[in-house]
Amino acid sequence: MVNRRTFLRSSLASAALLSLTPAFSKREAEMSLLFAPSSEGKEGAGNSTIKSPVPDDDFHLGMAGYTFNKFDLDTTLAFMQKIDVHYLCIKDFHLPLDANAEQIAAFKAKLAAANVIGYAVGPIYMKDVAAVDIAYAYAQRVGVDLLVGVPGTWGDTAPNREVLDRIEQKVRETNIRLAIHLHGPDMALYPDATSIWEDVKDRDPRMGMCLDIGHNLRYGSDSIRDLKRYAKRVLDIHLKDVTAPTKAGHAIELGRGIIDFPLFIKMLRKVGYKGSVSLEYEKDMNDPFNGIAESVGYFRAVQKTTR
Amino acid sequence: MVNRRTFLRSSLASAALLSLTPAFSKREAEMSLLFAPSSEGKEGAGNSTIKSPVPDDDFHLGMAGYTFNKFDLDTTLAFMQKIDVHYLCIKDFHLPLDANAEQIAAFKAKLAAANVIGYAVGPIYMKDVAAVDIAYAYAQRVGVDLLVGVPGTWGDTAPNREVLDRIEQKVRETNIRLAIHLHGPDMALYPDATSIWEDVKDRDPRMGMCLDIGHNLRYGSDSIRDLKRYAKRVLDIHLKDVTAPTKAGHAIELGRGIIDFPLFIKMLRKVGYKGSVSLEYEKDMNDPFNGIAESVGYFRAVQKTTR
Repeated sequence: MVNRRTFLRSSLASAALLSLTPAFSKREAEMSLLFAPSSEGKEGAGNSTIKSPVPDDDFHLGMAGYTFNKFDLDTTLAFMQKIDVHYLCIKDFHLPLDANAEQIAAFKAKLAAANVIGYAVGPIYMKDVAAVDIAYAYAQRVGVDLLVGVPGTWGDTAPNREVLDRIEQKVRETNIRLAIHLHGPDMALYPDATSIWEDVKDRDPRMGMCLDIGHNLRYGSDSIRDLKRYAKRVLDIHLKDVTAPTKAGHAIELGRGIIDFPLFIKMLRKVGYKGSVSLEYEKDMNDPFNGIAESVGYFRAVQKTTR
Repeated sequence: MVNRRTFLRSSLASAALLSLTPAFSKREAEMSLLFAPSSEGKEGAGNSTIKSPVPDDDFHLGMAGYTFNKFDLDTTLAFMQKIDVHYLCIKDFHLPLDANAEQIAAFKAKLAAANVIGYAVGPIYMKDVAAVDIAYAYAQRVGVDLLVGVPGTWGDTAPNREVLDRIEQKVRETNIRLAIHLHGPDMALYPDATSIWEDVKDRDPRMGMCLDIGHNLRYGSDSIRDLKRYAKRVLDIHLKDVTAPTKAGHAIELGRGIIDFPLFIKMLRKVGYKGSVSLEYEKDMNDPFNGIAESVGYFRAVQKTTR
């Protein structure tokens, strides 16, 4: 248990960190000036009900575009503003693979107006070399440095070496990283983090994985162990909770399932993960908004309370 | 920082608590049997991604009915099922003060079907002795043991002793407790916890307060200090976050404001609070659902992570 004295001590330590931590948000910096811990019992400043500032993390909460596959971009962006989330992995139903420069400019203007950063594209399935070229040309036109993709199609049972070779060539040409998406027991091709690791470990270091912590766990693999084990190759993360570590496990609001989020978030910090932790919410996809909001609230509280 | 060894040790301690803690939920007990921590690195059982069970708290999350003042009972109950919250303080727009036995029975059947417990009625304003009689007769017909109320009306500047005397008489007759609602700087009558304490401390111990941690803080009073100081008389709690400890402070999603929820929840445990912590969400009252869900997720995560 943290007692009051420990609490005040850690508050002061946090305040001291202020000048050292550039990632500190402006709002929190302002708050700490207004409400710096002072003598106990005094009201206003020193009011124990008022929280101390917490330094920002290097990683950020985002949304996997797939979450909104029943909703248009305007609805998606309005909702993201409401829940105060500002990173989106762009899915093709919001911006098609054949989008031209004008369409891409209009798309990016909408994101900018909503204060949302499109940090990556995908997941994109690349069944052959031609599909790789299309996907990479698209990522270049959109102007992202990360492509979430699958080198193959849903029915494949083995990785396609030719496709992987072409991707590696494209990664070197464009400096756009590839994060291979894993899909747990639902898909034979890349069910878990280890299966991706095996195929990328001897390739360009910009080839890695989008670690879906739910699907990986549904395959029986330990997602927190794998985050640690494969940290160098974890380029994107799909955040979700699931009800069981089996194929029968299904997506659920964060906190209602079996994943240990405090431990997960501590591991993100331990390995120095700096990318997006993007909620891919696959429950109630016709009306996912309350569940997403609950999940976002849960994630934020774990972030705050585990510093 | 909790390292892996400390984590495993605390997991084992939690598992040991199982047989001692009757408040443990069935689901969590089942999970602990399925996923008891075992040898490190082994998959399935011993998977570090799977959280350890956390004992339930003695207090429970609820909803203040006022939150839904733009919505009918059916909408309210359907949403409460969605967010998995099961305690409701009954507001008169859902069940009028003059409801007869038949109307009350129909109302209670709806709550039971939604797995919701109507744990109290109110807030009810009682401007005179006749209003006290009406409110208490209503609470008796509804069958609750707690009435959240204001002994007076919105414009009052001083407590009405005659009304308080009548309430005390009714408390003794009916054994229905009174929780006086405070309203911060918006209302001269009972702006904070101390003002209520002064009026109830020498009265029947079943007379106390509904501590609204947001309004109390907006008055400049320290809600966590007051929860500790007046614990014996805190009979109900309105949960909210606010943006500033002043009249200009307004309601906001839990976690986005200035209240230190980890410290608040630790204090609930420290004082042994056993009642409802009822979210009264006063932002976006025409469309509060996402904000409520986010707040519920935030509260639950703080509960889990501060054990």
